[in-house]
Amino acid sequence: MIHEKIPTSKQMSDQGGGGRQGSLGGAWNLRHSSLAGWLMRSMLHRLNDPPIQIVLWNDETICTSAQTPVASVRLADSATLFKLFANPDLAFGEGYSAGRITVRGDLRQLLEEFYRCGFSTEAPNRLRRILSTYWQRVRGRSLAQSRDDIHHHYDIGNDFYALWLGNTMAYTCAYFTADESTLDQAQTDKMHHVSRKLRLRPGDRVLEAGCGWGSLALHMARHYGVTVRAFNVSREQIDYARRRAKDEGLTDQVEFVEDDYRNIHSLPGTYDAFVSVGMLEHASAADYPELGRIISGCLNSSGRGLIHSIGRNRYERLNRWIVKHIFPGAHAPSLKEMMAIFEPVDLSVIDVENLRPHYARTLQFWRRAFEDSAEIIRQMFDEDFVRMWRLYLAGSEAAFNTGDLQLFQVAFVPRTNGRIPWTRADLYHEAGAHGHL
Amino acid sequence: MIHEKIPTSKQMSDQGGGGRQGSLGGAWNLRHSSLAGWLMRSMLHRLNDPPIQIVLWNDETICTSAQTPVASVRLADSATLFKLFANPDLAFGEGYSAGRITVRGDLRQLLEEFYRCGFSTEAPNRLRRILSTYWQRVRGRSLAQSRDDIHHHYDIGNDFYALWLGNTMAYTCAYFTADESTLDQAQTDKMHHVSRKLRLRPGDRVLEAGCGWGSLALHMARHYGVTVRAFNVSREQIDYARRRAKDEGLTDQVEFVEDDYRNIHSLPGTYDAFVSVGMLEHASAADYPELGRIISGCLNSSGRGLIHSIGRNRYERLNRWIVKHIFPGAHAPSLKEMMAIFEPVDLSVIDVENLRPHYARTLQFWRRAFEDSAEIIRQMFDEDFVRMWRLYLAGSEAAFNTGDLQLFQVAFVPRTNGRIPWTRADLYHEAGAHGHL
Repeated sequence: MIHEKIPTSKQMSDQGGGGRQGSLGGAWNLRHSSLAGWLMRSMLHRLNDPPIQIVLWNDETICTSAQTPVASVRLADSATLFKLFANPDLAFGEGYSAGRITVRGDLRQLLEEFYRCGFSTEAPNRLRRILSTYWQRVRGRSLAQSRDDIHHHYDIGNDFYALWLGNTMAYTCAYFTADESTLDQAQTDKMHHVSRKLRLRPGDRVLEAGCGWGSLALHMARHYGVTVRAFNVSREQIDYARRRAKDEGLTDQVEFVEDDYRNIHSLPGTYDAFVSVGMLEHASAADYPELGRIISGCLNSSGRGLIHSIGRNRYERLNRWIVKHIFPGAHAPSLKEMMAIFEPVDLSVIDVENLRPHYARTLQFWRRAFEDSAEIIRQMFDEDFVRMWRLYLAGSEAAFNTGDLQLFQVAFVPRTNGRIPWTRADLYHEAGAHGHL
Repeated sequence: MIHEKIPTSKQMSDQGGGGRQGSLGGAWNLRHSSLAGWLMRSMLHRLNDPPIQIVLWNDETICTSAQTPVASVRLADSATLFKLFANPDLAFGEGYSAGRITVRGDLRQLLEEFYRCGFSTEAPNRLRRILSTYWQRVRGRSLAQSRDDIHHHYDIGNDFYALWLGNTMAYTCAYFTADESTLDQAQTDKMHHVSRKLRLRPGDRVLEAGCGWGSLALHMARHYGVTVRAFNVSREQIDYARRRAKDEGLTDQVEFVEDDYRNIHSLPGTYDAFVSVGMLEHASAADYPELGRIISGCLNSSGRGLIHSIGRNRYERLNRWIVKHIFPGAHAPSLKEMMAIFEPVDLSVIDVENLRPHYARTLQFWRRAFEDSAEIIRQMFDEDFVRMWRLYLAGSEAAFNTGDLQLFQVAFVPRTNGRIPWTRADLYHEAGAHGHL
């Protein structure tokens, strides 16, 4: 459990009293504090009285639950309260990052309570959904836009990510096969799990779309004797991956292409396997059919494919704060939405596995390492950045714990591939646990 | 390989020359046989020249492939040819059943060629799809309609099914874990596979929708110590299942309810598991959301569920001949369509497995046993019935072999169930292979 440090009174007053919003709030709260308290009480009541304590700027304390609160949330000023009412999912994140909302107690547990009571969930509004789906349909993400979005998140420095992602530098859900698995072990096990689902054989040609820092491409080459062509638009990540390929003597087997996978048509060849781990979240749903056509066009008739992506039980937009501040343009699709990749091009889905609990545990590891390096990160960036990422990591863990987010691994083959494995037992045999070489 | 007996010339002429259609054809073919040949050639050419030989009523032989034909198809008259052009998917089945289309060679291989070249597949026509989806949406299947549809197929006599389904009387896809598995072993392994996916524990309460002759309900009670309430609208099947429960001393654990599962609300209680094997194919897509609400309403917060159904890579109506003559009202949904069960009620899909090759092998066993009993079946019904079922079984095998049909097992839990298994290894451990008792 990672408990956030309780802010000092100096910090609190600095945040609450300084700046325009603090001043506005200050003028208001003297006269209307009991109204604010009443508003907060109604809000908590409407959310089915979660075990959460709210402390207003004037120290008025509100809790409508009979249970012991899991955390106490302090609002620095009335402007923050207003924003929270108007745009809860955006305002909580922004207030927290700016230090105008502070949390005493367990941040993850607090966020889980929020997810459970639907605080940050947009009620599935039919009209909004139709408009949004339409909007997504007509507006795929352009290559330039994708590049900008990816730079925003991934090019803020390999050094930063190296502090908490572990040795594999895998920034996707790990796979924990034993209680005592470390993060590195679980990331390695994930890469074996993916490779085995792809039934890789020595000599296979593999296409990877969105390869991060290259860990999976290198892993497949190293353990399964395949050749990999891996696409990524992040310059920092590609540079890192190429260095690693050189260090490991795998440059003959792995080619890292600094480009959007949608430009694959410029390179000739067909492949035995297609894999994409943690890329789909960055694609627009409007681009799914194109992804399907690319996969279908590049796989040979005995090919296999796997897409690993964060998902939802049903269509919902990602939390707006995440999309605005963390992952521009990101979307976590439902399985129904994902089928827009496979159905039009007649791909057969052969295996779907939901690894939701694994992502919660992965995030627990990342969060612990992040907090251990919080001081260094503060020096690399600033306090707001630390708070923003703390909230993002804790919120993601809470979302996977409560089922607000899912993690789908979808394996598929072209319809013409008659060699669907009879059972999945081979994925779980110890003999196969570390590759076929 | 099951080769159909080559019809004697007596039979051929009987079939070709008798009846109104034969006479009409007779008048036509004398003058236009070469036109008929030309039409047939163009048709084969449009289908990419499959290795199939066509023999017309006047012995004119057509084959546009350079390969050795896998089978020879004889058309008894020109009316049959006309119908084949107008409604290929309906006319082939009706012509074959009536003996006006006869096949020399391997029937299954012939049908596989048809499936590969798209002969019987309706091209996904956007307008037709929209109209058909709309029609399905507004018209769910009424309880009375469902009952009629089920009677049509399942109440033609337990004795008939007992001839070829094996001892388990399971009329759904088996699960072959070893090359030497018999049909009975594979059906038993399927029931274990399903039970393990449901993570059944002694004392669990299970709801089954569409229980056939009761084999799965009895299996779960016998091997996993659960109690089962199983619904089925087929009187013949329910009678059989109840007798079996009595013989096995399982009446305390298994309750067979002769009713539509949609009437579950009349019985109180919640359940630890919901299971439905081979029932969804009989539901209309319009009824999926209601099925979801029933599942969601009856599962407790730690509940698990599984639906096992024939499916498709993408939306397509079932072959019209099948729907007209074999399974009235049947539909094989795509995964996208199936999500209409889970998404609206926030169920988390945790595992999808495609068992397509297993259904092809299951059908091979059924077909062999069916042919071994063909003479008895002819006496129970008539020759047309034998031909109709021969085509249905061979066609289904061909459809699974070529990927025209899929078999999906979809496991799911309510979002509130935080106890998703960490891995699926327990499904494949020998220790768990025969239950937990």
